[in-house]
Amino acid sequence: MKIAVLGTGGGGRAHAAKLLELGHDVHVGTRDPEATLARTEPDMMGNPPYRQFLADHPGIHLHAFAEAAAAAELVINGIDGANALKALTAIADQLADKTLIDYAVPYLYGAQMEHPWPTPFGTMPKLDPCDTDSLAEQIQRALPDVKVVKSFVTQEQDTVVNPEAIAGGDHTMFVAGDDAEAKKTVTELLDSYGWTDVLDLGDLVAARGMEMYAHMHGAIGMALGMGNHFGVKIVRR
Amino acid sequence: MKIAVLGTGGGGRAHAAKLLELGHDVHVGTRDPEATLARTEPDMMGNPPYRQFLADHPGIHLHAFAEAAAAAELVINGIDGANALKALTAIADQLADKTLIDYAVPYLYGAQMEHPWPTPFGTMPKLDPCDTDSLAEQIQRALPDVKVVKSFVTQEQDTVVNPEAIAGGDHTMFVAGDDAEAKKTVTELLDSYGWTDVLDLGDLVAARGMEMYAHMHGAIGMALGMGNHFGVKIVRR
Repeated sequence: MKIAVLGTGGGGRAHAAKLLELGHDVHVGTRDPEATLARTEPDMMGNPPYRQFLADHPGIHLHAFAEAAAAAELVINGIDGANALKALTAIADQLADKTLIDYAVPYLYGAQMEHPWPTPFGTMPKLDPCDTDSLAEQIQRALPDVKVVKSFVTQEQDTVVNPEAIAGGDHTMFVAGDDAEAKKTVTELLDSYGWTDVLDLGDLVAARGMEMYAHMHGAIGMALGMGNHFGVKIVRR
Repeated sequence: MKIAVLGTGGGGRAHAAKLLELGHDVHVGTRDPEATLARTEPDMMGNPPYRQFLADHPGIHLHAFAEAAAAAELVINGIDGANALKALTAIADQLADKTLIDYAVPYLYGAQMEHPWPTPFGTMPKLDPCDTDSLAEQIQRALPDVKVVKSFVTQEQDTVVNPEAIAGGDHTMFVAGDDAEAKKTVTELLDSYGWTDVLDLGDLVAARGMEMYAHMHGAIGMALGMGNHFGVKIVRR
């Protein structure tokens, strides 16, 4: 399958590498491919220069956002929450009629932040939108021809692409979206990643809860100790 | 142990009944005990009249809020989120130096609601406070002498008092609070309820994530079908 991954951060890399391993035709989008390739230092999160990632994963194609989206049938949004809406709206034509998986959390960073980083232990930066709207719904309203599915957001992305790393994969992933066919596509992708329990939370409005779960996710992660990834299993009666 | 349960709704009843069963001295608080006892119709959630609940659970003492709190060493707040802060502030003297377990979600109901009930499938009413503050922190600031512990809020209260009803109890409960001794008391109470995995999320600031999880909880519950209670298990690597 031709799949685009927008964004070159740690999450985007996890998906690009996994999709390549699964035999997909992987097109990564970045704002400025030349600038991305020119970097020789680790990024702000400590990820190695992207050209090293590409050298380690031959076959991944790097493009500008629009070309990556144009080349794909399915698009994964790995652009950070503060920039996603603007970046995606700019490539509306290339996204039209496609399924877009969004896993971003709409954190307010930098000058917009209510309190400086690090935030109080057990919380994350302020969310905007929050509670009565979600980033996923904003994207859907801005791009009515796109089939937006919210997923992945309740997990670190390296466990999203490798659920078996935690308790053999016995935990739960969620999807929400207004298009049943698009959710089926995403669920099949998740199955191929190794997920055995994908719970459909209904329409895209459920993305509110999925995004707002970020504080709980952060608190649990900090309680277990940095780097101790975990899964969330919905236990039925 | 002398324990007060403030509130006569379904959650308060679940705790009062369980605490009685465990042999505690249970003091229930209500705004107006005479009015509570005079009711002969089910409440708005369909719970039978409280006097029937008392007849079925001999030994539970019903008081006004202040007297219930005064009679207890440990207090469980079962007053709904919209009214909790005001009601608790009014009995500050009776709560002083005690551990207060808060499980309320600060929903805006009625005229304050952004959209009418029922809210969109997969969401709950608007939260206030949200994201950069929590009801639990508001209560703690209003009552600095009280040791506030947020807990119970991630589950329906009838499964909080009976965790074994879901998958034999193999799921996770959370506590957060600024007083380690108070969290120990609450964790011991949870152990007596049957919880085997109580995760300490740290300071009370983590109550933000616990309260904001309400939307996710609602969406999962609706996805599984009304009445299909579930547990959340934090799966470690």
